[in-house]
Amino acid sequence: MPGNSFGERFRVTTFGESHGAGLGVVIDGCPAGLVLDLGAVDADLARRRPGTGKLVSPRKEPDAFEVVSGLFEGRTLGTPLTFLFRNADADASAYEPLRDLYRPSHADYTTEARFGVRDWRGGGRASARETVGRVAAGAVARQILADQGVEVVAWVDRVGDEASTVDEGEVTRSAVDATEVRCPDRDAAARMDALIREVRAEGDTVGGTVRCVARGVPAGLGEPVFDKLEARLAAGLLSLPAARGFEVGSGYAGTRMRGSAHNDAFVNVDGAIRTRTNHSGGIQGGISNGMPIVLSVAFKPVATIFKPQDTVDRQGRPAVIQPRGRHDPCVLPRAVPMVEAMVCLVLADALLGRAPRR
Amino acid sequence: MPGNSFGERFRVTTFGESHGAGLGVVIDGCPAGLVLDLGAVDADLARRRPGTGKLVSPRKEPDAFEVVSGLFEGRTLGTPLTFLFRNADADASAYEPLRDLYRPSHADYTTEARFGVRDWRGGGRASARETVGRVAAGAVARQILADQGVEVVAWVDRVGDEASTVDEGEVTRSAVDATEVRCPDRDAAARMDALIREVRAEGDTVGGTVRCVARGVPAGLGEPVFDKLEARLAAGLLSLPAARGFEVGSGYAGTRMRGSAHNDAFVNVDGAIRTRTNHSGGIQGGISNGMPIVLSVAFKPVATIFKPQDTVDRQGRPAVIQPRGRHDPCVLPRAVPMVEAMVCLVLADALLGRAPRR
Amino acid sequence: MPGNSFGERFRVTTFGESHGAGLGVVIDGCPAGLVLDLGAVDADLARRRPGTGKLVSPRKEPDAFEVVSGLFEGRTLGTPLTFLFRNADADASAYEPLRDLYRPSHADYTTEARFGVRDWRGGGRASARETVGRVAAGAVARQILADQGVEVVAWVDRVGDEASTVDEGEVTRSAVDATEVRCPDRDAAARMDALIREVRAEGDTVGGTVRCVARGVPAGLGEPVFDKLEARLAAGLLSLPAARGFEVGSGYAGTRMRGSAHNDAFVNVDGAIRTRTNHSGGIQGGISNGMPIVLSVAFKPVATIFKPQDTVDRQGRPAVIQPRGRHDPCVLPRAVPMVEAMVCLVLADALLGRAPRR
Amino acid sequence: MPGNSFGERFRVTTFGESHGAGLGVVIDGCPAGLVLDLGAVDADLARRRPGTGKLVSPRKEPDAFEVVSGLFEGRTLGTPLTFLFRNADADASAYEPLRDLYRPSHADYTTEARFGVRDWRGGGRASARETVGRVAAGAVARQILADQGVEVVAWVDRVGDEASTVDEGEVTRSAVDATEVRCPDRDAAARMDALIREVRAEGDTVGGTVRCVARGVPAGLGEPVFDKLEARLAAGLLSLPAARGFEVGSGYAGTRMRGSAHNDAFVNVDGAIRTRTNHSGGIQGGISNGMPIVLSVAFKPVATIFKPQDTVDRQGRPAVIQPRGRHDPCVLPRAVPMVEAMVCLVLADALLGRAPRR
Repeated sequence: MPGNSFGERFRVTTFGESHGAGLGVVIDGCPAGLVLDLGAVDADLARRRPGTGKLVSPRKEPDAFEVVSGLFEGRTLGTPLTFLFRNADADASAYEPLRDLYRPSHADYTTEARFGVRDWRGGGRASARETVGRVAAGAVARQILADQGVEVVAWVDRVGDEASTVDEGEVTRSAVDATEVRCPDRDAAARMDALIREVRAEGDTVGGTVRCVARGVPAGLGEPVFDKLEARLAAGLLSLPAARGFEVGSGYAGTRMRGSAHNDAFVNVDGAIRTRTNHSGGIQGGISNGMPIVLSVAFKPVATIFKPQDTVDRQGRPAVIQPRGRHDPCVLPRAVPMVEAMVCLVLADALLGRAPRR
Repeated sequence: MPGNSFGERFRVTTFGESHGAGLGVVIDGCPAGLVLDLGAVDADLARRRPGTGKLVSPRKEPDAFEVVSGLFEGRTLGTPLTFLFRNADADASAYEPLRDLYRPSHADYTTEARFGVRDWRGGGRASARETVGRVAAGAVARQILADQGVEVVAWVDRVGDEASTVDEGEVTRSAVDATEVRCPDRDAAARMDALIREVRAEGDTVGGTVRCVARGVPAGLGEPVFDKLEARLAAGLLSLPAARGFEVGSGYAGTRMRGSAHNDAFVNVDGAIRTRTNHSGGIQGGISNGMPIVLSVAFKPVATIFKPQDTVDRQGRPAVIQPRGRHDPCVLPRAVPMVEAMVCLVLADALLGRAPRR
Repeated sequence: MPGNSFGERFRVTTFGESHGAGLGVVIDGCPAGLVLDLGAVDADLARRRPGTGKLVSPRKEPDAFEVVSGLFEGRTLGTPLTFLFRNADADASAYEPLRDLYRPSHADYTTEARFGVRDWRGGGRASARETVGRVAAGAVARQILADQGVEVVAWVDRVGDEASTVDEGEVTRSAVDATEVRCPDRDAAARMDALIREVRAEGDTVGGTVRCVARGVPAGLGEPVFDKLEARLAAGLLSLPAARGFEVGSGYAGTRMRGSAHNDAFVNVDGAIRTRTNHSGGIQGGISNGMPIVLSVAFKPVATIFKPQDTVDRQGRPAVIQPRGRHDPCVLPRAVPMVEAMVCLVLADALLGRAPRR
Repeated sequence: MPGNSFGERFRVTTFGESHGAGLGVVIDGCPAGLVLDLGAVDADLARRRPGTGKLVSPRKEPDAFEVVSGLFEGRTLGTPLTFLFRNADADASAYEPLRDLYRPSHADYTTEARFGVRDWRGGGRASARETVGRVAAGAVARQILADQGVEVVAWVDRVGDEASTVDEGEVTRSAVDATEVRCPDRDAAARMDALIREVRAEGDTVGGTVRCVARGVPAGLGEPVFDKLEARLAAGLLSLPAARGFEVGSGYAGTRMRGSAHNDAFVNVDGAIRTRTNHSGGIQGGISNGMPIVLSVAFKPVATIFKPQDTVDRQGRPAVIQPRGRHDPCVLPRAVPMVEAMVCLVLADALLGRAPRR
């Protein structure tokens, strides 16, 4: 089965290679009559864009998009909503020497194992460039969620060993965007910033984690037993480039707790059923319980480093590779809008697909 | 969208509540002509069954199954293959006092939020009993995989803070099953065993992690960009009861590494392309690379404890709950066959659904 | 992709061979809280059952069903609703001589071409017996539709050349069931009855058409451009055994009309927008318009005849076949509940899956 | 569920409104490594294009397309293959007077009933212009089929009462294209041509039927019980604008036959199993049997006529409509490539999705 679509009711299909004519996304199932805020789409895209700060890849991607279909007089028609992005700055010459080599921990070898052919000019579909369509679609999903009082905020939680402390109940997007590294804990952000500069100076890269909270999600979203809300979130987030782990609620740390400490007691807060703690991360039995949904995603260090590495070529002959070109020493700051986009897509899909009760 | 099916090509649909007439699974897309080893299905089911050891829930579930359809003269017909399990030992009286209470960190409240009604006799679909169909289907998938040389082995990696050291390349099912706790590191197993007994004596529960390796997976499985192999695995594993986290390859630990240390150099081993290390966990760019697939799953402590807990009833009035009945102090040993089953389902689906090349 | 499921939101999966242990259906996505009228399910099943009249196959099928899951205290739980039917009267000895022969215009040869194996004891999944699960699921769908004021009535429109005249706006189920042949035009019914008896006496079979009307369908159902309501109806109805054609509205006859005569003028009837004529059959641009949905299905003559026929065996050697056993000379009367079931399934799916508007 | 995708393995998603910025199609699941013949795509598009003959709508649509993604150095990458069409000649002023009126037997009213909003500049998604993406995708599917020896040819079978006689085993595309009306029976073509001119002179329109044959389809395609090959074909063909009926094999005519005359005797032809007659139309039990697949589609008369018609406006007030602009008096000649495209899409999907046997 082809794998370029995500979601059932709010269904996105992305297309395009990093160095082809263009990329884009078709959203099928966007509700009709939505007054689309294209400026908000642009703002989300700007956060994903490389080359806007000192910490990330200097590739110039204007990310100007065209709405090809689905929008009329400012409102969605309920028909497929299509965003098209042109690849402007797509000089492939830097990739020419890599044409027959498999870059370590990239998708070059596996793409050939799977498809037999490969667009060697960059990462093709495996490039982070592919996420441009996800972020655009996520921005549309975010507008649908905002109408229902749902707010999604992600931030860089840790870079390498530099960890932050952030209040999930209070964190705001403006606090996240106040630092270039997108960590609202200013002290931690400074340490992360320093680490990324150090790593870049070494021609190396570093990984880390993004945390995300969704506040205002109504109780009752999720479709047991296989489309539990955390299963859908995990699928969406592990589909991001470089994602290697996922946690919801207490995650791995919670596995070290006793049940008596981990259980979230129910309490009545002004007539609403809430839990005293939120180790469940807002999801119990695969269904949202009305508490904030909290999750984390692990991102491995970027595979493109500026040091010589052993590899083989297409004929299996040993070779040494030394990448050149434009790359991030750390994907984390740009991963923040990508994580938010996938969470928005999952939640909008769940919200719109909510089964009717009799 | 209803959520009780999993997989595209090898598609399983489970049905049944923990205390209803029965449960089961329909497998649509099982290849025709497979000589089904029902003894192997039974063996996998026996590992999932509670009440077979000292460490786990004493509920008696014979798990005798009937093959209702899809099998003729010992071979699969290619038509839906249906396994039916009867609920024999389903005394619901222990649940009667809980009828109007929401057990903390169970699915009682969210099930009502989602559906408006609930079978209060046990966990309904949220019960671990539901996984009986998954394990049966996983056993069928395992036979398909074995034909292609793929082997899936999981084990208890950690209980609370008691961690093990296991060689992913060598670990075998018999080594796993040699200890009741299903940890092939005998020293660690003894410590885990002691911890579980201690926790049980306290009327409490404890969580942990399961690791799993799939060896012999051919390169080329996975469907970018949304149905990357790790995304499918994450979805399958996070759909298990009590699962709260997922890692592939180096996972969260890898996020602390530098790219230069993390990258897996390609090498030519007797004509086959392999990687020197396997931080990628056998998957690069969402596609298998022929190396062992390695993953972990975090399981929270079981929610049913034998201590009084605060909660509310259906009217939102404060209440105190003291569960009785039969329960596991630690789900980890029984989670091992569940993890294997989901991994088998994902891999068989990917293998059978492999796109034809021209 | 396996093909034993139908519907997106109200999703049915049927299983079982005609001469195996049993058959059934899992309904995933049935709304929770529905007070299920099992007597109504039984009544629909009785109409499908062979052996209840003089005109049809004398096979005894009690069709007693068990609700295995999804129902608690008389109400649906919103979880998979499973109906199980046992195969009681399943003597396969009549099929023994046909074991290696391909019966003309049956599915024997194609089943082997597709699957390599075949349950030679009857038609397997190609048997009309498979529709027992569809009719049960359709009866559940009918209850959901009835709640919304939607009524579905089918009847035998023509047998061979014996045609009827029936008022689609007025026809009722009781009028349909008043004759054994299920044609509410009594004169036509008598002619059809005579024709079927004549054909049976010859050891032959005859085909015909069923018409169906759905009244009370709200405007706005259907999902262009591929899941237009008529496309979903056509798919459902062509999936019935022996179905060879489908029409909606004016169908083939309408192709002979001029547009000026065919167009349905809009009129305002007491504040509701209606059309003066209904050549569109209640569907325009793939979306219901609030007028009665009218369709027909063509059923070929039953393939099992009691005359010698040329064929080949599994080795391709010429052979002569002379079927024995129990068979219908005309499937039309029993096709009426099957057609209604599929129409109910399509409409309930469309109704429950109705996209939310903003 | 949104409805703008078709197919499981070879999955097409169309987007775009008739008078928006553009339209297109994303094909997900096109096999990698296919040397795409873009000239053949263009040739199929040319047949669909209005304004190329005297009989059809004079709208100028150059249909120049851009391949935005999925193609590299002339070969498909196995990634989403995207065709984009710009809307050049999209003057909407002719639609201005119709802005608040519901054109009889168009999708105006139902689109508003479904979505609440509507692009009044033309038919939006209901326009035949939408099929441009289907035809492009169908041309790609046709190349995949041709590699396997499958050939798909459709023709105009009847216009109004003017019927043709065509040998399904021999008919070729060049014979079809030899007449402007696309009927290979020259006498019939002349009569059809005269009828269409007459109807146009009256400001009226007329319907008819298209027949289609697929030769060389291997035995074994189709997925009972719901995705039988004829069910998929019916769904695809009924999703075409103006389609109102579908037949496979003997269709409605076959319902008047006796089983003894209708059954297709199996014969051994040079070691291959064939049938003496082909009333089954190449499909038995929902699975192809290796004989030519034969089907027909009924197309109603075009709804746009040049005569005054009664209707209502958006407020339900009576109004009279008199369409102006560019329209076909008969859609049949242009429907030929549309029918072929949908048949190619269904067959390529079935061929690529063929389940592996053990």
